Amino acid sequence: MKAAVLMEVNKPLVIEDISLPKPGPREVLIRTAVAGLCHSDLHFIEGLYPHPLPAVLGHESAGIVEQVGSDVSYVKPGDHVVTCLSVFCGTCDNCTTGRPVLCTDTTVKMPPGASNRLSWGRSEKLHQFLNLSSFAEQMLVHENAIVKIRADMPLDLAALIGCGVITGYGAVVNTARVTAGETVAVIGCGGVGMAAINGAEIAGAGRIIAIDTNPAKLQLATKLGATDVINPTDGDVVGQVRELTKGGVQHAFEVLGRKETAEQAFAMLAPGGTATIVGMIPFGQKIELHGFDFLRERRIQGSSMGSNHFRVDMPRLVEFYLRGKLHLEDWISAKLKLSEINEGFANMKAGKTLRSVIMFDA
Amino acid sequence: MKAAVLMEVNKPLVIEDISLPKPGPREVLIRTAVAGLCHSDLHFIEGLYPHPLPAVLGHESAGIVEQVGSDVSYVKPGDHVVTCLSVFCGTCDNCTTGRPVLCTDTTVKMPPGASNRLSWGRSEKLHQFLNLSSFAEQMLVHENAIVKIRADMPLDLAALIGCGVITGYGAVVNTARVTAGETVAVIGCGGVGMAAINGAEIAGAGRIIAIDTNPAKLQLATKLGATDVINPTDGDVVGQVRELTKGGVQHAFEVLGRKETAEQAFAMLAPGGTATIVGMIPFGQKIELHGFDFLRERRIQGSSMGSNHFRVDMPRLVEFYLRGKLHLEDWISAKLKLSEINEGFANMKAGKTLRSVIMFDA
Repeated sequence: MKAAVLMEVNKPLVIEDISLPKPGPREVLIRTAVAGLCHSDLHFIEGLYPHPLPAVLGHESAGIVEQVGSDVSYVKPGDHVVTCLSVFCGTCDNCTTGRPVLCTDTTVKMPPGASNRLSWGRSEKLHQFLNLSSFAEQMLVHENAIVKIRADMPLDLAALIGCGVITGYGAVVNTARVTAGETVAVIGCGGVGMAAINGAEIAGAGRIIAIDTNPAKLQLATKLGATDVINPTDGDVVGQVRELTKGGVQHAFEVLGRKETAEQAFAMLAPGGTATIVGMIPFGQKIELHGFDFLRERRIQGSSMGSNHFRVDMPRLVEFYLRGKLHLEDWISAKLKLSEINEGFANMKAGKTLRSVIMFDA
Repeated sequence: MKAAVLMEVNKPLVIEDISLPKPGPREVLIRTAVAGLCHSDLHFIEGLYPHPLPAVLGHESAGIVEQVGSDVSYVKPGDHVVTCLSVFCGTCDNCTTGRPVLCTDTTVKMPPGASNRLSWGRSEKLHQFLNLSSFAEQMLVHENAIVKIRADMPLDLAALIGCGVITGYGAVVNTARVTAGETVAVIGCGGVGMAAINGAEIAGAGRIIAIDTNPAKLQLATKLGATDVINPTDGDVVGQVRELTKGGVQHAFEVLGRKETAEQAFAMLAPGGTATIVGMIPFGQKIELHGFDFLRERRIQGSSMGSNHFRVDMPRLVEFYLRGKLHLEDWISAKLKLSEINEGFANMKAGKTLRSVIMFDA
């Protein structure tokens, strides 16, 4: 089967023939239907985060179960599933206390380089990415890396839920626990930021302020629930937020993964407010915060994959879509073939797309 | 009546004759029984935080009601009360949503320089401090700056509850909401740090790690509930905490108000852990945090006066003392007369005392 392989950083992905073994006892073989291109993939392509290479990237996908291991009872061939990189063991301290996203198991959640499920006609080891490797026609994953969804849910939209949507929505609903009527600001209106805005709307947030330099994105943000928009090119973002809200927001979400905007998120809080860092700030960079601002009980926290419990959250997201509350159609800017994957990343880098997806049926 | 007046920063307090008017409708006149010397008073004496001068400092006290205003029904003359600087209006957004410590009212909670209740035989205005001014034989305060306590509670111990104890205990119980079995580290074992340790013990915390350079304080910390002690003079504090806890604590409390220790508190967290800043970090200083550490859902937050709802919390603290769970006797290192107040601050500065109190009966 075909897969897109990252041979070295900052080089185009190469389409190669690779193969997978039969599923182990708790593994599931999935026919990939759709895989989204995520900014995190791009970070790894660009070498901002290290990963052993060559590797098959991709971690936001949906597909159909083809074969299951001897101990798998959760799904059967033909089931529609969404993948999630937050594979969980279900038995460690964090899993059993409601935080599976912090699962500490390393057999189920293998560290980079540990898995040996991918092979190809070379002696060099081909590495699996985040226990998934979705840029391939098939995936072999642990049963706890997938969630079953309704068969009437379109798989291209379902794929988005697996990473971008849960990350933004979950930051609002699970990590920050925004409640009805609270004020929210979202810095960065890409796919994850849009999901945060849509999540805030679903949670009944009061004022929802979308912040981005791209007017088209701000327009879409308004459709998804933003009550106010701020374009940083118009000047001091923190001052504008403070003016709009008479003193600051109760929740700020930083979705860009930048030092400056993380500091802005904290600075735009009302006393008692919470800033949630959703973006991945490059390794080695420090955030600088005024100690004085903590006196009025401000808080800053990280959100990993929207603090998801994906077996619970993703079926809910599917329902929200089917009830017209989650506007997934608006996320997809382009549908590509696997062979067009490098073009998709080029467009992402140029800021042209909200979300491109690879359609394996196409 | 006598009061200790701060005429200018970094000068000894001066005992002066001052006077108070009759209570306004919602005011209460209190005969001061005991006033604790707090590090925050020292910060103001040293000019680290600005305040209009001359002023009567002091904000940790207990006393007996002498006279009440026409609209006061909460207390009557003879009632024993503890004062709290977290005076609350009870009607603003923060008060009505359970966060009275963030009360936004400025008539009840007057900003520095706004009150005109103190007078003396000079034309120059004498300023009230934090709506209290406890270094005086009498106090005239808003009824929402006090809480009634049982008459069998010793007033010297009750005074401590009003600031130092609630600040440490409340950071653990109210702000961080430490639950039974969780791991806790407390950096700085002065009065507030001891209250945090004792609070963690009351809340049933699992491992409680006390961190201080003073061996005598570490010994007392052990009596109050610490299961482990670390002396930073023995080397890398963060490394020691990580080793003791196999990867970090769930809760760290910074009680010194220093940039370096605030950064340590964040660095010693396990994934998903929370650092709570209790100390007042000098204005203008920034805390630097590795952006990468937020990826595993670490959090850092400020605690103001232990996020107290003092009408609820302080009677509970009194009960804890009377049931032998809160070891207030251990806090008091010295009992002084008002005329000895400068000696008390000199000892505090030299690190010789946990808590000195002024006994007005003495």
